[in-house]
Amino acid sequence: MVTKADLQARARASELMRRRFLEISQLILKGERPVLVMPKRTLSNTIYDHRHKLLLLGPETLKRSFTDVNEARKFMQTMLMASIIYDSLVNNEYPTIRDLYYRGKHTISYRDIDGKVVHENSWEEQKESDSVIRDLEVFLNVLREELLILSKEKGKVVGNLVIRSGDDTIDLSRMGHGAYSIEPTPDLIEFKDVDAEYVLVVEKDAVFQQLHRYGFWRKNKAVLVTSAGQPDRATRRFVRRLSEELKLPVYVLADSDPYGYYIYSVFKIGSITLSYESERLATPGAKFIGVMMTDVFGDAPFSEVLARLDKGFPGISKSSLARLHGKKAYLDEKERRNYIIKAKQKDVERAVELVGYEVAEVCMDEGDLKSKVKKRKEGLTGYPWFRSPEWVRELCIFFKTLSKLEIEAMASKGLKFLADSYIPEKIETKDWID
Amino acid sequence: MVTKADLQARARASELMRRRFLEISQLILKGERPVLVMPKRTLSNTIYDHRHKLLLLGPETLKRSFTDVNEARKFMQTMLMASIIYDSLVNNEYPTIRDLYYRGKHTISYRDIDGKVVHENSWEEQKESDSVIRDLEVFLNVLREELLILSKEKGKVVGNLVIRSGDDTIDLSRMGHGAYSIEPTPDLIEFKDVDAEYVLVVEKDAVFQQLHRYGFWRKNKAVLVTSAGQPDRATRRFVRRLSEELKLPVYVLADSDPYGYYIYSVFKIGSITLSYESERLATPGAKFIGVMMTDVFGDAPFSEVLARLDKGFPGISKSSLARLHGKKAYLDEKERRNYIIKAKQKDVERAVELVGYEVAEVCMDEGDLKSKVKKRKEGLTGYPWFRSPEWVRELCIFFKTLSKLEIEAMASKGLKFLADSYIPEKIETKDWID
Repeated sequence: MVTKADLQARARASELMRRRFLEISQLILKGERPVLVMPKRTLSNTIYDHRHKLLLLGPETLKRSFTDVNEARKFMQTMLMASIIYDSLVNNEYPTIRDLYYRGKHTISYRDIDGKVVHENSWEEQKESDSVIRDLEVFLNVLREELLILSKEKGKVVGNLVIRSGDDTIDLSRMGHGAYSIEPTPDLIEFKDVDAEYVLVVEKDAVFQQLHRYGFWRKNKAVLVTSAGQPDRATRRFVRRLSEELKLPVYVLADSDPYGYYIYSVFKIGSITLSYESERLATPGAKFIGVMMTDVFGDAPFSEVLARLDKGFPGISKSSLARLHGKKAYLDEKERRNYIIKAKQKDVERAVELVGYEVAEVCMDEGDLKSKVKKRKEGLTGYPWFRSPEWVRELCIFFKTLSKLEIEAMASKGLKFLADSYIPEKIETKDWID
Repeated sequence: MVTKADLQARARASELMRRRFLEISQLILKGERPVLVMPKRTLSNTIYDHRHKLLLLGPETLKRSFTDVNEARKFMQTMLMASIIYDSLVNNEYPTIRDLYYRGKHTISYRDIDGKVVHENSWEEQKESDSVIRDLEVFLNVLREELLILSKEKGKVVGNLVIRSGDDTIDLSRMGHGAYSIEPTPDLIEFKDVDAEYVLVVEKDAVFQQLHRYGFWRKNKAVLVTSAGQPDRATRRFVRRLSEELKLPVYVLADSDPYGYYIYSVFKIGSITLSYESERLATPGAKFIGVMMTDVFGDAPFSEVLARLDKGFPGISKSSLARLHGKKAYLDEKERRNYIIKAKQKDVERAVELVGYEVAEVCMDEGDLKSKVKKRKEGLTGYPWFRSPEWVRELCIFFKTLSKLEIEAMASKGLKFLADSYIPEKIETKDWID
């Protein structure tokens, strides 16, 4: 019943935990103060590595000491969670993070220094226990999936790829009209055979269904993946492994709006709150093939802005912006009129978050700027990886036109257009953003 | 590339559409007024069939006439949508409902009776075009999936079941740690071979993952399905087909809260706004095995209420409530304390919607009643299928304790407990609600 892959994973993980926590108990046996040392998971210790294009944890560490009254609670929580996870590992359990929250939730009653009985909960909300699990991930330098902690899983895949998962060999080109739903522990997947030229990650499940049904992946020798919205960890890890181990280029197809761009950046760079995972979950080589604002409008709206721009932005010279290649629009005037959706307030706010206030200030009409961006937030300089000439052009057109476009609009121009022209042409001509 | 199943489905659907709309064009050719006649999709024409336990459309029909000025717009929209869908069928397209909205969206300019030029959009929002698609479903008496309209799809399945989908034969017991993601057109699936005793539908994907990994379906000869939350149409149709064609009993496992109960009722009865689909999407024989409030508390809280209850409720006598079997609690006092979640305002409102205000009035403490149920809404008598002694007991305990419980809590008592005791025991002893 229990698969060999799981047994091996359990052995690896429990041995690792045993070894790391033995160090703590040895401190205690020696009469020393037990201390856990681990990298700090704070924003200030999150570094964007420009060379590797990755969010990483910096060198700062924190100490969690049992004998420090400010740290005792956290220390206790960490030890409690570690023991629950260890028990799950050796007892063939497959907990979820919700589970772990429930399992550890209890009330401790004790007398305080004045002899008064005090009740204290191990943790109040799942937020608290989740944070402890993250601490353990950085302490042990593993992903929680390697500790056989399961979760819901939205990612799907089809393509000329044969994998081994559990005790089965699965041909992902033989899924009929359905698809293979990726397991929550993607590190246990073994790639057996592949006959593909690239990976296409589609943000939207419905578009994945359309491309799959149309035979896109067969015709184009692609591995077709969907994250069904914001990607979960397993889908990100799976895509990363396809890129790293099978050396397949990865292209991301998302809506043309700040939310779609952000989904791409989660695949590529990692998410800012969980930077410690990026090193293993992010795919630095992933390319955004669309939908781009320049696919919708060409670069005319940006050229207009550029003409009246004195200099560029910090780190982005005007000349680097002017050097961008011209772009053809894939939609004509009438299609634009029918397909474009007006950007909402929160789209604008999200766009400012991505690329910074200065770009909005330059590209938006004055009236829009005042009504859509309430007040200038200092330090709102955007994420470094969106401060490239290419992204500034995209976001600038977004600010100027206050428009967005869904992938579905491209499909409604004809699935044939999307599958046989748009995607292959963009890949062929390298019309992507890196 | 294109599968035989799809080709056949296209031929069937396009022939049906051709035949039905030929009738309209013949009316026009004969010089008669073109009229579409179809069942009314209104709440007043939605009937709960107590015998078959199904929501059905009643006998009322509506006429949509081209020459009636109030109907002309709707008539035009229906013909427009029909022609787009027909074109998609014959052109090997796989549209989504979002697609169809985009494809038909355009502006018509015409001169009104005073010679003034008027601009009118074919439809403004997707809500409008979706409603037209529903009209076509009832007019043609097909599901939109049979017209090869695709959608995103959350449902997954594993088990001793071999299916044929597209050109592939797929063994759903060989999915490794992953799962088979159900296709959006489940009527095209062919059941080839099955070795299972029942279907277990799990509301939550994470719990599905746990049970799958634990080997639950193999040990218990179950087909394991998850709807990953509120079930989509394809998952409902797939489960219905398992029940109807393979004669497998269907058990639903959901959270113990009004939202979980409602998910069960969507599987069993259908959703009230889309009653026309129920005849083909609902599984009237589906049973709710848990989690029940009586699994958490036993029936003590209800006995208390029953003791002070003079008579029952309209249609539910006190004696029928008193005849209910006693129930054992699966959680002890300490587990209850750690696992139970306090019901929120919206849980209470949803519960009132399900079972009616009278039950809340009798079972809730007076203070709670006043603060949680703001004002009595007249006619809030609940859904007929929740007005059974068994459901009244469950909801009464919910109102009295204002507690809810997630399936995950049962899993955190031990996956072994959930998989080897709780579920099999409840099925074995028929401790379910029908």
